[in-house]
Amino acid sequence: MVRVLRAAAAQMGPTQKADSREHTLGRMLNLLEEAAGRGASLVVFPELAFTTFFPRWLLEGSALDQYFERSIPNPAIAKLFDRARALRVGFYVGYAELTPDRRRYNCAILVDRDGEILGRYRKVHLPGSVEPRPGARYQQLEKRYFDYGDLGFPAFRAGSAWAHAIMGMMICNDRRWPESWRVLGLQGVELVCIGYNSAAYDPNGGSTEDAALRTFHSTLVTQANAYMNATWAISVAKAGEEDGSGLIGGSCIVDPNGRIVAQAKTLADEVIVADVDLDLCRQGKDKMFNFAAHRRPEQYRVITERAGVVAPAVLDAD
Amino acid sequence: MVRVLRAAAAQMGPTQKADSREHTLGRMLNLLEEAAGRGASLVVFPELAFTTFFPRWLLEGSALDQYFERSIPNPAIAKLFDRARALRVGFYVGYAELTPDRRRYNCAILVDRDGEILGRYRKVHLPGSVEPRPGARYQQLEKRYFDYGDLGFPAFRAGSAWAHAIMGMMICNDRRWPESWRVLGLQGVELVCIGYNSAAYDPNGGSTEDAALRTFHSTLVTQANAYMNATWAISVAKAGEEDGSGLIGGSCIVDPNGRIVAQAKTLADEVIVADVDLDLCRQGKDKMFNFAAHRRPEQYRVITERAGVVAPAVLDAD
Repeated sequence: MVRVLRAAAAQMGPTQKADSREHTLGRMLNLLEEAAGRGASLVVFPELAFTTFFPRWLLEGSALDQYFERSIPNPAIAKLFDRARALRVGFYVGYAELTPDRRRYNCAILVDRDGEILGRYRKVHLPGSVEPRPGARYQQLEKRYFDYGDLGFPAFRAGSAWAHAIMGMMICNDRRWPESWRVLGLQGVELVCIGYNSAAYDPNGGSTEDAALRTFHSTLVTQANAYMNATWAISVAKAGEEDGSGLIGGSCIVDPNGRIVAQAKTLADEVIVADVDLDLCRQGKDKMFNFAAHRRPEQYRVITERAGVVAPAVLDAD
Repeated sequence: MVRVLRAAAAQMGPTQKADSREHTLGRMLNLLEEAAGRGASLVVFPELAFTTFFPRWLLEGSALDQYFERSIPNPAIAKLFDRARALRVGFYVGYAELTPDRRRYNCAILVDRDGEILGRYRKVHLPGSVEPRPGARYQQLEKRYFDYGDLGFPAFRAGSAWAHAIMGMMICNDRRWPESWRVLGLQGVELVCIGYNSAAYDPNGGSTEDAALRTFHSTLVTQANAYMNATWAISVAKAGEEDGSGLIGGSCIVDPNGRIVAQAKTLADEVIVADVDLDLCRQGKDKMFNFAAHRRPEQYRVITERAGVVAPAVLDAD
């Protein structure tokens, strides 16, 4: 059995605060059509794909709630589900989830070609802060607006349309944490889908890291963690200038050797496509990264015993 | 206080089975002299630096024991310790350790400029197999010749000669396992020293991965794990053709952004040097990788609960 699926990364350019939901959905439908036209059976959209990256603003009440979905699908985004089903294409998409009991998550779902939700993931590694930074024009308030994901990092086994791939999801910052990848790796993951909104620079005027370095970081962690878990990865940006705050691009499809197979060249709406040969995972999973043969969990305990750093004592002398 | 030390990677070319210990030590002394002459206060030598990579051979009795050190230092290698102390240079070196109770470890030590052993590490991630592969000319018998390291991944705080750096050690295969890095990262590590002997190709004639891909893997994991733990890393090869079996080079010094600051260009004895500014670790440790603020250990449990893969169930239909 040849285990190959053609997958697309649907990078999105910026979405402004003033953009209507309908306008943004129209762009997503265009990306979906292009990906389907190029033969993709899986299309990966970014994190919080339906809206601007609203955690940069201090908001409350309905000004905040407008960015959240109370159910999926719903009338405002039904066209994406309908068109994907008609095209026989499935997708990953990130969105802000508001549950019936008023919990809020930075969420992603995998939707198969029949429009059924194959899996759901809620972001574990929320960056930013609960309290706004005084005097700052731009915030990063994910820790304020979202609850920590409560679903772990579940892996899902897809159907025949996706070559029975073992699939996992991450959202943005998760990809920088090797623990996210390893929890999926320990479920035998073969294809990790990731959406992100990552700052291209400090929008408040700091100058520690430029866009090139931040794009390098994003690509580097995707490549290395894909290799160390012998999995494919599709990592997809919302990119460009959103109301004066810049986001990196660099969406990429990475093979289980950590090599970039396709990468976006713009900061705009852009589709990249690659054939994902799942059997390329076997070399790593059977040899170098045969976890059962080579991992030593008894030496890793500190990883789950505490969150933060405990440094060795300072020496008395010298 | 400016926290900078000048460090050298002392890559070694191949060491043949027939090479005398004295000859190899002479090469190491030359590397040490060059590094000291270029102002280095720390010199990192490879894994199993005093001998050929003997786990490729099926050996027993004295034919095996000849590759092991019964104590450190000992007369056969005292010159390295003596000359380093005279030059006021410290070093990392890997060697095969045979303890008084006949336990065997793939070991590394950090020796300070006074010739005192600052820290010891015993390799945790032993690759290869216990039983030889039938009919194969070259073996990988680390699991046969060595006990699993029993010291964890300890971090050590250096003295003023090394700017009070928090230092850690790995050996070869350890660098491909993000757990090794994270256990050191959770101790606030600022400089990780690594020695390796990594195959450049399958010496028995397989053709799955060539030297370029294997060197890429080695560099990639060092860069990404340094970045994800906001630490410097110095990763040093024994390189070239040892009795018909090839080893990659690519020794490198990597900064806490994952950028390569210096990299060896040959497969021979070669010194590379860089100024290691420990304060460059702060940006990552205080913000993106502020572990106490952002890690979620309750979601990582599977990392320490089991070694191997448990895949999701196969679906009944589709």
